Amino acid sequence: MSVTPVSFTLNDLPLRDDLRGRSPYGAPQIDVPVVLNTNENPHPPSERLARALADAVAATAAGLNRYPDRDAVRLRQGLADYLGHGLTTANVWAANGSNEVLQQILQAFGGPGRTAMGFEPSYSMHPIISRGTGTAWASVPRTADFRVDVDAALAAIAEHRPSVVFLTSPNNPTGTALSVADTARIAAAAPGVVVVDEAYAEFRREGTPSALELLADHPRLVVSRTMSKAFALAGARVGYLAAHPAVVEALQLVRLPYHLSAVTQTVALVALDHADELLGAVADLRAERDSLVGWLRGHGFAVADSDANFVLFGEFEDRSAVWRALLDRDVLIREVGPPGWLRVTVGTARETAVFRDTLLAVTGR
Amino acid sequence: MSVTPVSFTLNDLPLRDDLRGRSPYGAPQIDVPVVLNTNENPHPPSERLARALADAVAATAAGLNRYPDRDAVRLRQGLADYLGHGLTTANVWAANGSNEVLQQILQAFGGPGRTAMGFEPSYSMHPIISRGTGTAWASVPRTADFRVDVDAALAAIAEHRPSVVFLTSPNNPTGTALSVADTARIAAAAPGVVVVDEAYAEFRREGTPSALELLADHPRLVVSRTMSKAFALAGARVGYLAAHPAVVEALQLVRLPYHLSAVTQTVALVALDHADELLGAVADLRAERDSLVGWLRGHGFAVADSDANFVLFGEFEDRSAVWRALLDRDVLIREVGPPGWLRVTVGTARETAVFRDTLLAVTGR
Repeated sequence: MSVTPVSFTLNDLPLRDDLRGRSPYGAPQIDVPVVLNTNENPHPPSERLARALADAVAATAAGLNRYPDRDAVRLRQGLADYLGHGLTTANVWAANGSNEVLQQILQAFGGPGRTAMGFEPSYSMHPIISRGTGTAWASVPRTADFRVDVDAALAAIAEHRPSVVFLTSPNNPTGTALSVADTARIAAAAPGVVVVDEAYAEFRREGTPSALELLADHPRLVVSRTMSKAFALAGARVGYLAAHPAVVEALQLVRLPYHLSAVTQTVALVALDHADELLGAVADLRAERDSLVGWLRGHGFAVADSDANFVLFGEFEDRSAVWRALLDRDVLIREVGPPGWLRVTVGTARETAVFRDTLLAVTGR
Repeated sequence: MSVTPVSFTLNDLPLRDDLRGRSPYGAPQIDVPVVLNTNENPHPPSERLARALADAVAATAAGLNRYPDRDAVRLRQGLADYLGHGLTTANVWAANGSNEVLQQILQAFGGPGRTAMGFEPSYSMHPIISRGTGTAWASVPRTADFRVDVDAALAAIAEHRPSVVFLTSPNNPTGTALSVADTARIAAAAPGVVVVDEAYAEFRREGTPSALELLADHPRLVVSRTMSKAFALAGARVGYLAAHPAVVEALQLVRLPYHLSAVTQTVALVALDHADELLGAVADLRAERDSLVGWLRGHGFAVADSDANFVLFGEFEDRSAVWRALLDRDVLIREVGPPGWLRVTVGTARETAVFRDTLLAVTGR
């Protein structure tokens, strides 16, 4: 078979100019015993939940020859009920992971001649998805302690007039949450849509607010969420958002028809029915995180305050060497964020213990 | 709750200019007894298959807290084996429905300043997805009998220099297949990527070829397929393509990370394992289609030759009136394609019989 002529490469294809020389995005998928690099929830669904999922999929399977509900109404209703705050189906939209939700936002409100803005370091997909939709990216640096400097934010908004502003709270990869007052000031000043990416919201510490509180007063505000983290469903790819119904209408103009499979809708609904079980583990992970932060500080590491299921710590002269030394001892974390820092996901108590011991070993502390 | 202030509408959002005034794409989802409007396969998965799907999903569920295989290697291997023609994993890519596959092609090879071309009437998502990625759309009309005029195609390609050319074979909504010779001439002349959308390939008549035959000699050729139709899995959203590995590499630069859920990958693999059962119904549907074509012609309707699981027929002075009269009698078909024509999906023998009787009643033939 000659489907693979040796002489033909990516350079012989009319690839978009801005993609030339790029590599596919994504953390290394390396199979080691302790995987703490992609902020997954370490607790798999219980056998009871797995069985409930299987039974529900069996029922859904009987109708798989038909297209799914294009508007995913039951799922959106379930997500609205979960979020509370008086939200209804009309306020909620769902897609294949929050990445697709964010892409749809940029397809509706971004594009050539428009700008999206973020406060970095932050979730690296924000600029990637922005540029992927032809939207210019304006990066505003965070302060040395990873906060958003609101005065600098307002000045940057006045200068760039972004049609989309990304706030990430708790922020990835730093774990930093944003106050409601700061979010409100930015939402009031921004001329376009303000997206608060709350992928890690369920892990925030007591007293840390959610931007959901602000939706009633800010119709251009969007709060995006995911079932990947607190719901322990990274493999099922369910992201969603809450916003004014007009935002949802806009996304329905750009979504691919039938973007969300009947099976995905079913899996997400069953998970929502088991929210108590799934979210029960979140309290444990928060405690494990707080304990890890304290332990790291106790051993002289710098640690960013974390409202998420991961911890950013440092500072290392050669963080790559530390990352590699950990991996050599079968502990995979993430080399991401500001130079000198590393990010570790909060795993099970056992995984975190292995991480602690290994970190001491490789750093000689 | 005041999340829905009455004074705020879509017009108050920074919607992209080309989306203003648009409606969401999609056929009406109307719940009537005979649904023959979206080219679904009328045969649901068997109980045996539904159980196999449930069991496989139960196993997958146990690991749903982890992200899926970003590269869907096992699924792509299974699809390559199904397609044959010496194709391997490196030749195949999969996504959430062929719509997402096509969108990724346009994200990689289209965009502002570039043009995609199609031969219309054809699948209406081609121009929609093109424009959604900022790609200009060049439409070349088909002949009166719905064929692609290759000389006109070559002239249009020379004029527009499209970076993406869409051929649809069998064509939707006309059912018309393209010869390998014509496809080869267009593939040789086109400066960019040539996509043959073969969503309905498994329904083609004896002797009608697939463009898969041409892949070895045309590294810029892409053949897109779907599991929605022949595999009766519209609800599972699995589209895929076969092409040179360099094309697959290009798509990996634009795909959202973890775009395809672990559950979707599992469902598709189980369906491939049951290909014999699923494709067994295809022969029946082809026979039913040929019989319907003959019957329509016998009753004086004009009918386009069909290699798909639907039939385009006419011609009506007021096709909307015929469509509406059928719907009033609980038969939903599709008002699509050239003026004066209607499209009906081939359903079960019973559904097709109801359609025939109802059509005679409403047209008075």
